Amino acid sequence: MAKEVVYTQRVEFGDCDPARIVWFPNFFRWIDAASRNFFVQCGVPHWNETEKTLGVIGTPLVDTHAKFIQSASYGDVLDIRVSITEWRQKSFVQKYVVERRNEGGSVDTIMECEEVRIFGGRRDGEKPGIRALPIPPSIRALCE
Amino acid sequence: MAKEVVYTQRVEFGDCDPARIVWFPNFFRWIDAASRNFFVQCGVPHWNETEKTLGVIGTPLVDTHAKFIQSASYGDVLDIRVSITEWRQKSFVQKYVVERRNEGGSVDTIMECEEVRIFGGRRDGEKPGIRALPIPPSIRALCE
Amino acid sequence: MAKEVVYTQRVEFGDCDPARIVWFPNFFRWIDAASRNFFVQCGVPHWNETEKTLGVIGTPLVDTHAKFIQSASYGDVLDIRVSITEWRQKSFVQKYVVERRNEGGSVDTIMECEEVRIFGGRRDGEKPGIRALPIPPSIRALCE
Amino acid sequence: MAKEVVYTQRVEFGDCDPARIVWFPNFFRWIDAASRNFFVQCGVPHWNETEKTLGVIGTPLVDTHAKFIQSASYGDVLDIRVSITEWRQKSFVQKYVVERRNEGGSVDTIMECEEVRIFGGRRDGEKPGIRALPIPPSIRALCE
Repeated sequence: MAKEVVYTQRVEFGDCDPARIVWFPNFFRWIDAASRNFFVQCGVPHWNETEKTLGVIGTPLVDTHAKFIQSASYGDVLDIRVSITEWRQKSFVQKYVVERRNEGGSVDTIMECEEVRIFGGRRDGEKPGIRALPIPPSIRALCE
Repeated sequence: MAKEVVYTQRVEFGDCDPARIVWFPNFFRWIDAASRNFFVQCGVPHWNETEKTLGVIGTPLVDTHAKFIQSASYGDVLDIRVSITEWRQKSFVQKYVVERRNEGGSVDTIMECEEVRIFGGRRDGEKPGIRALPIPPSIRALCE
Repeated sequence: MAKEVVYTQRVEFGDCDPARIVWFPNFFRWIDAASRNFFVQCGVPHWNETEKTLGVIGTPLVDTHAKFIQSASYGDVLDIRVSITEWRQKSFVQKYVVERRNEGGSVDTIMECEEVRIFGGRRDGEKPGIRALPIPPSIRALCE
Repeated sequence: MAKEVVYTQRVEFGDCDPARIVWFPNFFRWIDAASRNFFVQCGVPHWNETEKTLGVIGTPLVDTHAKFIQSASYGDVLDIRVSITEWRQKSFVQKYVVERRNEGGSVDTIMECEEVRIFGGRRDGEKPGIRALPIPPSIRALCE
């Protein structure tokens, strides 16, 4: 079983649109925060640190696929369940299940998302950029 | 050939993150605006109007899949090329290609996105919600 | 002494700009959420409820004045201390002090903000809008 | 007369809240973009450039005061009229008037904002920060 970390997010009035439901780009704001929180909770050092030790400056997003199952609105409390479900050579799949806690204890699945991310290092040269590094074993060991 | 509508977006300082590139949730903000603009430019009336005539209150998002190809940063001007590439019974596929105009006239593809959206109508009942309506032929005729 | 309610907010990577500090519009996102939370914690019913009983649909902002004292960055946890410091005929002053909890227990004041808000009711007519209602005594009693 | 630069902004669906009007923090997003655009249009070089020549890395915000006069909603086009109305020793006042262009040619003032900003330079030391530089005469000459 992959390690799972839960990130909790309140839905606020300003997160909702004139249809009175969460404006969908906000889910990606929260998912990005939940992604970073996953690494923090797994004990991965701050990217400032890993830049010095491993050359890793962060986990840029390459591909994302999301399904919107139910709408959420302000007042809702969402649990974003995060895990890494696949490790490839130079990328990994990070999965998110966003659930709403209802009164009475039931939960509704609001949306699901699967991302492909890389461990990014700086690429020098004429036009500086970011390149995919091989998965650092020390980070993988902390996250699975 | 599907009809194509271009939505232009400047990238601002505040759209970028500490890595100095566009923070990816902002692409979805722009894509949502580009989606709506597509219908406006095709001559589809305001949703306030279509709610009365067709019961359509908007085009909620069901599924989105995006690939991030190059990063963009502040100062960039992005063209988001929007079209509807598939019409299904009760949903449609809206496609986005985000390009940066470079000096000298070349363009870079920054990201691509394919969404499944529905034409949403109100569902009454105990817990009000949204349901997928059959594609209104009058709207489809304007958009293809 | 006015009643004080604290709203806690993590600062995330995506809340920060290329200068690596919180992009200031985000403070206003959090302040708006802290304003609403103040009323919830004081026991004021949901605006859906007060619309029926008092005609109050929310607390629109009329005027805001903020001082930015220190910058904050991702990883910081901010406490937003909220109170209503003045009640006028048809408006009130809501005050925010945003503090960062440091390791070791000290706090830094990050920013301060004073807003003038109203209790808004619907104004019907040709162009619908919002009008300021006299302060509802039942709400005031809960908040001071 | 101070130099004036106009920044134009469409209001999109997602900029609006469940009350169907612009959620106010979005005004500050646009004002920040309009502030930066002012310097660009006045011919001030990119901050990457001024950092090398003048030590100026940007114009951090110290204080902002905004009045919300009328609401705006999606479909509106807003002109943000920007000028610098006061030059102090180590700070300046930047003023914004946000107007909506109506059909028929009339304009409505939506909000007004006065900011105090500084020309920021890096402060080295144990905890790096930003300090206010004296107003660079070369920048002032371009902006007034």
